[in-house]
Amino acid sequence: MNVAGRMTLHWSPRSPYVRKVVIAAHELGLADRIEHVRTVVGGTVPHPELMRENPLGKIPTLVLADGTVIHDSPLVCEFLDTLHSGEKLFPAAWPARLVALRWQALGSGMLDISLLRLTERNKPEAQRSAPHAALWQGKITCCLDALEGEAEALVGTPFSIGHIAIGVALGYLDFRFADETWQVGRPRLAAWHAGFNQRPSVAANMPEEG
Amino acid sequence: MNVAGRMTLHWSPRSPYVRKVVIAAHELGLADRIEHVRTVVGGTVPHPELMRENPLGKIPTLVLADGTVIHDSPLVCEFLDTLHSGEKLFPAAWPARLVALRWQALGSGMLDISLLRLTERNKPEAQRSAPHAALWQGKITCCLDALEGEAEALVGTPFSIGHIAIGVALGYLDFRFADETWQVGRPRLAAWHAGFNQRPSVAANMPEEG
Repeated sequence: MNVAGRMTLHWSPRSPYVRKVVIAAHELGLADRIEHVRTVVGGTVPHPELMRENPLGKIPTLVLADGTVIHDSPLVCEFLDTLHSGEKLFPAAWPARLVALRWQALGSGMLDISLLRLTERNKPEAQRSAPHAALWQGKITCCLDALEGEAEALVGTPFSIGHIAIGVALGYLDFRFADETWQVGRPRLAAWHAGFNQRPSVAANMPEEG
Repeated sequence: MNVAGRMTLHWSPRSPYVRKVVIAAHELGLADRIEHVRTVVGGTVPHPELMRENPLGKIPTLVLADGTVIHDSPLVCEFLDTLHSGEKLFPAAWPARLVALRWQALGSGMLDISLLRLTERNKPEAQRSAPHAALWQGKITCCLDALEGEAEALVGTPFSIGHIAIGVALGYLDFRFADETWQVGRPRLAAWHAGFNQRPSVAANMPEEG
């Protein structure tokens, strides 16, 4: 594996998983080394070219100059974190690593549920399942309430991949489920997220249609 | 965080994500320290007690003696790997780490798709989406074909979390989609998986209804 040279990222402005990678790259000073290639996945149309590199057909998929392929988003971020000598997004020592990676898992899980909800919303009404919709909404509510209780810890812990994952998950709610106004009744989490949104890495990479 | 003492694992004999953890614990000589608690999730019934520990309501969820909660399955496995001084399932050095974690991501992705397929199969027929079914089956085929080309690397690489993830993903196809006989036309991957199934950690933890 040759880690020198430019990297290519299968990218979309809509994908929250891609957004985690782009924010991480910006935080680590690596954004200039990564070329974005607009790759359209989602829906039910397969993408054979992407699947030759990542058979799961998912983005983000990072391709190094030597052809090495890296996915999924946690692995791409952890790999990028090896390419610089500054403060690490993935703490090496436990339990700091556990704290960061549990938030990463929580944020990823919230995104997974949000994507299921979005897919469901886009289906013909006859194919939608009300019990699934209720289950997923209940889980998101439970995650948000748990995070409101952890907002102080988010503020007090050095910035990590966990913060990126939680911040992106909340940003995806703003992007796709704005009418649910998750901020209501959760002032501490809302305040933390408002600060997150002011980081240059985050503000430069807001989710967009297109 | 106090890592001494017994741990409690929210467990099911059907869950492939749990199975990865149980196999890892067995490989690392930690199985005796982990108490299994049968936790029923899936379907559309929420599990409020589990969601107090893991708001995503998913298993595996590991609870340490001091109350620390750890999820998802990759993080539980990586944590268990810190509790012993033998050969590591998560290589510390790159690119060995990349190889293991890419296989882990591929195996997890195959499981995610397989669970979506299973959920779809269990829905009333009017709610099923044929285009999604075709997309998911195509992705699994693509993953299997890619892995047939990587079977030699699986054999030649020191046993890692990547092997567990791929082996469990293939075992889940045998458990839930046996009629698809993924082994046909993929003799090298089938041979590797047959050897995987003979490991004591794997043979002692085959998926089961119940």
